[in-house]
Amino acid sequence: MSFSALDSLLTGRLFASEAMAAAFSDEARVAAMLRVEVALARAQAACGLAPAALAPALEAIDPASLDLSRLGRLTVDAGVPTIPFVKAVQQRLPPELERFFHKGATTQDVIDTALVLQIREGLALVKADLIAILDGLSNLAEAHRETVCAGRTYGQHAAPVTFGYKAAVWLTGVADAAALLPGLRARVLVASLGGPVGTLAAMGEHGPLVLDAFAQDLGLGVSPIAWHALRGRTAETGAWLATLIGALAKIATDVAHLASTEVGEVAERHSPGRGGSSAMPHKRNPVSSTVILAAHAAARGHAGTLIDAMAAGHERPAGLWHAEWHALPALFGLASGALREARGLAAGLELHPVRMRRNLDATNGLLFADAAAARLASHIGREEAHRLVERAAEEVRETGEPLETVLARATPHDLAAAFDPGPAIRAAAPWIDRALAEAGRVRELLV
Amino acid sequence: MSFSALDSLLTGRLFASEAMAAAFSDEARVAAMLRVEVALARAQAACGLAPAALAPALEAIDPASLDLSRLGRLTVDAGVPTIPFVKAVQQRLPPELERFFHKGATTQDVIDTALVLQIREGLALVKADLIAILDGLSNLAEAHRETVCAGRTYGQHAAPVTFGYKAAVWLTGVADAAALLPGLRARVLVASLGGPVGTLAAMGEHGPLVLDAFAQDLGLGVSPIAWHALRGRTAETGAWLATLIGALAKIATDVAHLASTEVGEVAERHSPGRGGSSAMPHKRNPVSSTVILAAHAAARGHAGTLIDAMAAGHERPAGLWHAEWHALPALFGLASGALREARGLAAGLELHPVRMRRNLDATNGLLFADAAAARLASHIGREEAHRLVERAAEEVRETGEPLETVLARATPHDLAAAFDPGPAIRAAAPWIDRALAEAGRVRELLV
Amino acid sequence: MSFSALDSLLTGRLFASEAMAAAFSDEARVAAMLRVEVALARAQAACGLAPAALAPALEAIDPASLDLSRLGRLTVDAGVPTIPFVKAVQQRLPPELERFFHKGATTQDVIDTALVLQIREGLALVKADLIAILDGLSNLAEAHRETVCAGRTYGQHAAPVTFGYKAAVWLTGVADAAALLPGLRARVLVASLGGPVGTLAAMGEHGPLVLDAFAQDLGLGVSPIAWHALRGRTAETGAWLATLIGALAKIATDVAHLASTEVGEVAERHSPGRGGSSAMPHKRNPVSSTVILAAHAAARGHAGTLIDAMAAGHERPAGLWHAEWHALPALFGLASGALREARGLAAGLELHPVRMRRNLDATNGLLFADAAAARLASHIGREEAHRLVERAAEEVRETGEPLETVLARATPHDLAAAFDPGPAIRAAAPWIDRALAEAGRVRELLV
Amino acid sequence: MSFSALDSLLTGRLFASEAMAAAFSDEARVAAMLRVEVALARAQAACGLAPAALAPALEAIDPASLDLSRLGRLTVDAGVPTIPFVKAVQQRLPPELERFFHKGATTQDVIDTALVLQIREGLALVKADLIAILDGLSNLAEAHRETVCAGRTYGQHAAPVTFGYKAAVWLTGVADAAALLPGLRARVLVASLGGPVGTLAAMGEHGPLVLDAFAQDLGLGVSPIAWHALRGRTAETGAWLATLIGALAKIATDVAHLASTEVGEVAERHSPGRGGSSAMPHKRNPVSSTVILAAHAAARGHAGTLIDAMAAGHERPAGLWHAEWHALPALFGLASGALREARGLAAGLELHPVRMRRNLDATNGLLFADAAAARLASHIGREEAHRLVERAAEEVRETGEPLETVLARATPHDLAAAFDPGPAIRAAAPWIDRALAEAGRVRELLV
Repeated sequence: MSFSALDSLLTGRLFASEAMAAAFSDEARVAAMLRVEVALARAQAACGLAPAALAPALEAIDPASLDLSRLGRLTVDAGVPTIPFVKAVQQRLPPELERFFHKGATTQDVIDTALVLQIREGLALVKADLIAILDGLSNLAEAHRETVCAGRTYGQHAAPVTFGYKAAVWLTGVADAAALLPGLRARVLVASLGGPVGTLAAMGEHGPLVLDAFAQDLGLGVSPIAWHALRGRTAETGAWLATLIGALAKIATDVAHLASTEVGEVAERHSPGRGGSSAMPHKRNPVSSTVILAAHAAARGHAGTLIDAMAAGHERPAGLWHAEWHALPALFGLASGALREARGLAAGLELHPVRMRRNLDATNGLLFADAAAARLASHIGREEAHRLVERAAEEVRETGEPLETVLARATPHDLAAAFDPGPAIRAAAPWIDRALAEAGRVRELLV
Repeated sequence: MSFSALDSLLTGRLFASEAMAAAFSDEARVAAMLRVEVALARAQAACGLAPAALAPALEAIDPASLDLSRLGRLTVDAGVPTIPFVKAVQQRLPPELERFFHKGATTQDVIDTALVLQIREGLALVKADLIAILDGLSNLAEAHRETVCAGRTYGQHAAPVTFGYKAAVWLTGVADAAALLPGLRARVLVASLGGPVGTLAAMGEHGPLVLDAFAQDLGLGVSPIAWHALRGRTAETGAWLATLIGALAKIATDVAHLASTEVGEVAERHSPGRGGSSAMPHKRNPVSSTVILAAHAAARGHAGTLIDAMAAGHERPAGLWHAEWHALPALFGLASGALREARGLAAGLELHPVRMRRNLDATNGLLFADAAAARLASHIGREEAHRLVERAAEEVRETGEPLETVLARATPHDLAAAFDPGPAIRAAAPWIDRALAEAGRVRELLV
Repeated sequence: MSFSALDSLLTGRLFASEAMAAAFSDEARVAAMLRVEVALARAQAACGLAPAALAPALEAIDPASLDLSRLGRLTVDAGVPTIPFVKAVQQRLPPELERFFHKGATTQDVIDTALVLQIREGLALVKADLIAILDGLSNLAEAHRETVCAGRTYGQHAAPVTFGYKAAVWLTGVADAAALLPGLRARVLVASLGGPVGTLAAMGEHGPLVLDAFAQDLGLGVSPIAWHALRGRTAETGAWLATLIGALAKIATDVAHLASTEVGEVAERHSPGRGGSSAMPHKRNPVSSTVILAAHAAARGHAGTLIDAMAAGHERPAGLWHAEWHALPALFGLASGALREARGLAAGLELHPVRMRRNLDATNGLLFADAAAARLASHIGREEAHRLVERAAEEVRETGEPLETVLARATPHDLAAAFDPGPAIRAAAPWIDRALAEAGRVRELLV
Repeated sequence: MSFSALDSLLTGRLFASEAMAAAFSDEARVAAMLRVEVALARAQAACGLAPAALAPALEAIDPASLDLSRLGRLTVDAGVPTIPFVKAVQQRLPPELERFFHKGATTQDVIDTALVLQIREGLALVKADLIAILDGLSNLAEAHRETVCAGRTYGQHAAPVTFGYKAAVWLTGVADAAALLPGLRARVLVASLGGPVGTLAAMGEHGPLVLDAFAQDLGLGVSPIAWHALRGRTAETGAWLATLIGALAKIATDVAHLASTEVGEVAERHSPGRGGSSAMPHKRNPVSSTVILAAHAAARGHAGTLIDAMAAGHERPAGLWHAEWHALPALFGLASGALREARGLAAGLELHPVRMRRNLDATNGLLFADAAAARLASHIGREEAHRLVERAAEEVRETGEPLETVLARATPHDLAAAFDPGPAIRAAAPWIDRALAEAGRVRELLV
């Protein structure tokens, strides 16, 4: 099981992507920590605070040669993995370099900057999936402009829409989230280097220069002041990942319902063994929707933890910083699985237009009640028309007669045109166009 | 009590501002709903879908004349307050206008667009407080550039900083949140008008034109497609409010600790009766910090509810939309109280620099251990220097002797300069400058 | 709107019951605070710490005569409503009694004990609803023992069950929550009286006696030590209310789906105007499910806030205690609405057994695939049987032929008995019996 | 890093115990799944539904021989690890047994019952820690009955208490949580066996007997009806773990503050390397408090996810069940680390009574203001006394004169006795006794 289903051998690959697991592996983390120390050594060498030989000496250390389990055991006492990490690296440096290593930096600088490097990798993976999902959903919206189906509110048939319209709604939800990614990247991909209390005092007047060089070496931005105890960046990242998963959950909610037995308007792409059951040979469970909805249910708690962590005391808090480690990587894991499955849905959802049409007809015209009432209102007033159609709908439910027939008996006004799905199809089209245009604009922002 | 402490006669004014309470009052809500109907009538009149007389007739209705309690009783059955509202308005319209009223719109259009109008008002109040807080904290940072005090990590003295530096950190946290406001406004201040299933089918080819005119009349933006079931906007607003409160909670955490009896470095501004106790005549409880920290503890749950609500099914969900009503206005309420109190702190925090200095000295120089070790490292290597100072610190704790004295015995190297707070003060300065510049830039974005 | 939808004139009655709103009104709160002071006066009089005339003098004060708005304005500075409350009461007491009033108590004693009195009232309302729901669901389970319908997993038809079985599952969920109520009452209905730091030092040796008499006078229990900063009781109450709402949300989830257009197996009881739409005259939206699901989505955040609040510092925290006021009453409000609607569902759900049967048949026998495979396994082995039926199911989906026919071609074994729903009905019966017995046992615990 | 800090090689041992990690390992999970199948085979054999040889054949399979990575890869398609697990086991059984294996059961039966076996192991570990913590805190409370120290409210000195009293409060918080464990065990340690839709239809009339025998074989209880979609048990377990961590977080909050530099009344037990800093040689960071507070900040989100999951649709939901896997094991992990550290605090907290006494005196008698006002009130009335002492406290703050001296000038009444800490010590004693008695009672319930 492992404590997290994302890390389990049994369920990890179901719920998270391999690429994201690699990005947030312990191995990647230690490599990122070493990379951070290299950047610090380079930046300090440029200011004359460290010998030029230090950075190459650090680069020569193979991160894989560090014993992770040993670091982990020492972390139990140290409270932070940086301390055993720094000691382990020190032991591999010659004495004349060792004294310059990690100079003026603090544990949090290494951990937070390494985390930012992992976040950069994670966001790149997210971006690639987002582009693919935007493309897939755009195709769906375009291809099914005229595939008419029921619009549903409160789980009830409301009025006709097209499947292309529904896909365009999904598309807009994803595009809305994707549009925030560039700004988020600019804010969160920021180096942390402040030393014990954030002022880089040990570097004297060179502090700001060292930070700038350090950040540049890593391709990261710079915060105006140390963010050791300013956790808005991580909280924003977490909230964004949770809302991104939320945008995918809207799709999964719809798909799971449309794929349910009685509705049957779509099916997740089937391959042998996919979504089977240990007991029921006929089952094709919607695995993609399941993974996404589980991610959604788990994500919000993590996002909340990151918001909690903003109340960090003074220059570094006892506990709230560490709480982030329980939450932020997990959000990347959850997002990676949800994105992969949403990508699959966007690319391979099976549609059953015949079934959509049959479902439309199942309520004997009630789906057009709104249109009929609107037409009638222009003759007899809005409230009266509403009441008359309400009563007719009642009769339809009881007798199974078509609404059109019942209304023809109840009113002399010709309402036949209300039962034509054509207007619904035409009405949906401009919104699809707008959604496609907006998604195209967002896609440009991403690539 | 009321169910919410924000709405209680006893505690409402403590936890929320009067202006925000007015913005989110039932009266304001109904007035906004009526305003929405006016905009719809105007937009439809412009397209020939409604008579020109409808909008003025609606404008003539005094929202205060609608019986809120009666609407509330009818809402129990209707499930949504729009339905009794629409009926009540219909009854005040002449028959020839009534049939055109609310035509082609749905309940959610009215409620969501009215909500957006209230959000606009709420965000304007937030913005005004933010500017005042940025100004107050900028002044604090500037004024206390050289007021030296202890930097603390894990609750322990770490190394010296200045109070101006601490204020600059607070300032940056608030500026980081404030910087997101213009973008948020652009995304969330968007009209909702889609009709039963989002396509405005009842308006035929005029749908998009009506939406655009409707939005323009209200001074709102337009979403590419109906957002009835796309709740990323409300989720983003909620997450932003929660992170904004989080940025204030960082200040409150620090202030509450700095104001604690043993630390005594600051006090919340005192006025007679402020923060008293029913039992203890000497108490001056930090009421501002209390209000902010309570808001922080309550906010995250609401933000999570809004993320939950993104999994909205089909064209309108049964429950998840309504869950927003339990969460979003409350977040504005919590933010308003927290902002008001933070504004008070930024403008009126009492500082006790003498106490700061005394606290610095209380640990017999341990606060400079880092600086001493750094100097020593250049002579004897980093690891050895760390160990030697660690042992010396132990001795200081046991004997109460100054660290400088103990180290003078332990090593021949001259470490006196390490015990000068001057470098800490100078090291803090450029970060304060950067923070002030960034806050100034953000302030420009807001006004 | 008010900040909380529970307190709004427009939506308050939809989401909360009137009785619960009365129990948590400001008026009820102040009356409870006064009642607490009466109990303290009596207890102190019994120990000779207060004159016998104090309690009657307090009883003579009409709580309605206290100006709530004025108390609220003073609370903005005081930070806690007890302080202006105590002053207002003092002013109504003659000088010779005034000096004994509220003696040795602290603000939190009054607020927390008054809250407990409100919780007692709230839990009594909850209990009454729970009993009604247990009765209603027991009737449903009993009445529909043989009403066969589809069992669904992952939204897909799985195998037949009975509607009585489904109701018995709901019943057990509610009974599981209800069974915890007596224990919860015993733990949470506990007086708070500790004075400034919990030790009742001002009462000297009489402290424990005064607490015991105070609690007894109020019909409350006693905690071994002051719970000013031990908030497990309120956290447990919040978690219980949230899980209770969760048990109701399971029912609402099922009902909303069963009532959806394509399924149509149940309908919420309809009355004129119930669940209508401002646009669509044919709509009957499931208002009860909507209210319950919205409560569920809002409840968990509040429960989390109460768990947060457990990290209360020292003898009273700055913020975490006050955060409870944002959360606990709201949970009672949410629960009251959800319970009322669940009670309505339990008593008045409309069933459509003909539709259930039709839905069973809609998949051409796939619902019996599990039974067929099980029978076949005894002839040809489990894995082989699973594969064969899986292939047959594929054929059924493609051709629309009955599974029984397809299997008859594929295997010589007689599988006709697998397509008889009788065994499913009989298999469900003993579980219904067990559920009814357990619910009966829990009901006895409650009354 | 791994996605969870609990699973990371670098940080896993810091945040979770090894024993708990073993209990929730993938290896333990698969072994538990196999154990579940053995119990099913035995129960079915007893009813004649399976050959007697099946159970021994299953017992002969070494769970370590199953390839976890392979099962994990297959789970990506299957959606649930039971399916590849069942296939892998089938392949090791002779054909004559294979057809009886897993007969009539469903994937969820195996996973949920295996989870319950892991929960049983996890709760046993929790219980052992709880007993040790109760013992340690009882000793602290007893040993420091007369160690006087400041009571603090809102971070301010309020009135004197004893450290034994504070420990007794902590003790009661833990005992309150521990008292719920036996009832929780009875409810949650319950077998899951229901087959595809919960009715065990494939077992005909034997269903209930098989379940009872299955549960008995595993030493588990029985639920009246299948709990596949009734998730109150897991939600209750999660909420309990979160409130347990909350009770520990109260201790950690207090310890972290008491150990802060200016207060210095306690220190976490120090060992070489414990709580060091990579930069600051003098630091002794409170690692235990840090671990506990981080666990607290992370726990509530998981508890919320489990409450969410209660809205499970029909006989098995698509997503909400799986969401539990992201939350429940993590809560056990977080609890295990927090409990281990709390055990360390209870057993080894270093106290500094001299510092406590010095802190008491630091406010020049203000800590006794409450006692002075109470005495004065008996002479001049409550409100007048409060005002007079309030003014005197003001003077003390400005001049640094002792409150006793200032009051002696301001009033002729002799208030000397108010400045004796003796009454505070004596007042605390009976509450310590009550707390010890209650903790003893709870301890008896646990062992």
